[in-house]
Amino acid sequence: MVCQECSKPMKYPEAIQQLIDSFMRFPGVGRKTAERYAFYVVNHFDEADTVAFMESLHRVKQEIKPCETCGNLTDETTCNVCKDKTRDRRKILVVEESKDVMVIEKTNMYDGLYHVLNGAISPSDGIGPENLNIKELLERLKDETHQEVILAMNLSEEGETTAMYLHRVLEKTDLLVTRIAYGLPAGGNISYADEMTLFKALEGRKKY
Amino acid sequence: MVCQECSKPMKYPEAIQQLIDSFMRFPGVGRKTAERYAFYVVNHFDEADTVAFMESLHRVKQEIKPCETCGNLTDETTCNVCKDKTRDRRKILVVEESKDVMVIEKTNMYDGLYHVLNGAISPSDGIGPENLNIKELLERLKDETHQEVILAMNLSEEGETTAMYLHRVLEKTDLLVTRIAYGLPAGGNISYADEMTLFKALEGRKKY
Repeated sequence: MVCQECSKPMKYPEAIQQLIDSFMRFPGVGRKTAERYAFYVVNHFDEADTVAFMESLHRVKQEIKPCETCGNLTDETTCNVCKDKTRDRRKILVVEESKDVMVIEKTNMYDGLYHVLNGAISPSDGIGPENLNIKELLERLKDETHQEVILAMNLSEEGETTAMYLHRVLEKTDLLVTRIAYGLPAGGNISYADEMTLFKALEGRKKY
Repeated sequence: MVCQECSKPMKYPEAIQQLIDSFMRFPGVGRKTAERYAFYVVNHFDEADTVAFMESLHRVKQEIKPCETCGNLTDETTCNVCKDKTRDRRKILVVEESKDVMVIEKTNMYDGLYHVLNGAISPSDGIGPENLNIKELLERLKDETHQEVILAMNLSEEGETTAMYLHRVLEKTDLLVTRIAYGLPAGGNISYADEMTLFKALEGRKKY
């Protein structure tokens, strides 16, 4: 049906539409999901929930900044990992995103430092090395405490390009440059694995 | 790794964790998705985006209320459909959610009125007829302009229970009570259809 006043198709009330538009900005959120979220706010968020949500958005933008040393997100000047005197300062593990730091921390398997690039090289998106925290990494590596750089990029075209670039830049130095292993994941089924994963699994094979 | 100060596992900065918690309240959003959304805000929302998002949350809670007549969400006292003098007041289509009204409006196939129940009967969730806008519907139906009640519940246990309940209450009246058709959807493949859909498709079969 069309609106009796303007003959245009019926629309959501403006405030709902504005909220739907905000949710649609998020990655992987299409119109249907955004509508679902917006109606969830309308129907299930009380005053306190809404205030808490608004406050958390405000706080995150006010308080969260990259660590001055490694680029990991923090609410202080230097992040907890960089401040931690017990960590092995010889190793720096390079990741694309701050979120990746938390994922690796949760494994309890790594005791070195990190460096967050804040993205990956992607010529098609206009992202070159100069748009990432690479200059900061090279600057940091002048400190001779650091001996190993572990590249932990995602297994994607952008991740590969970034790792190749860093390898090329760093191979002139005395640093040991390593790369995390790629291959079939835990629970992974060969029949369902994609070509890239299988290629890496074969390429990385070891003597049994 | 654990925090050097409290020996507890590393955590996100509090502001990020609070935002993740807010996102996790949304339907279908687990920890991973909530983290993805929160980091998207941190990395890709500028000041203006964040203010717009906060404002839309605030506005939606301030301005959006159910229509006094039909329960459809609106930013006025009476919604656009109820106000529209050109609509066929003989028909009232009953839906579970306000969102369903918009979906049906978009088809441009219905010119009657609506009634939004704001949910469906679900004994396991403690939702009975008294928790829905059913009393308001029965009150509305005393107006003899209304001649047909079209039940458009979802095809789910709750939807079925609600439709059965309304049918039982309304069969004592002179109103024509109808129900929308259920069956195989457009593009639906019989091999992948669930039992409920197939049952409804068979039950609702028509002479060819």
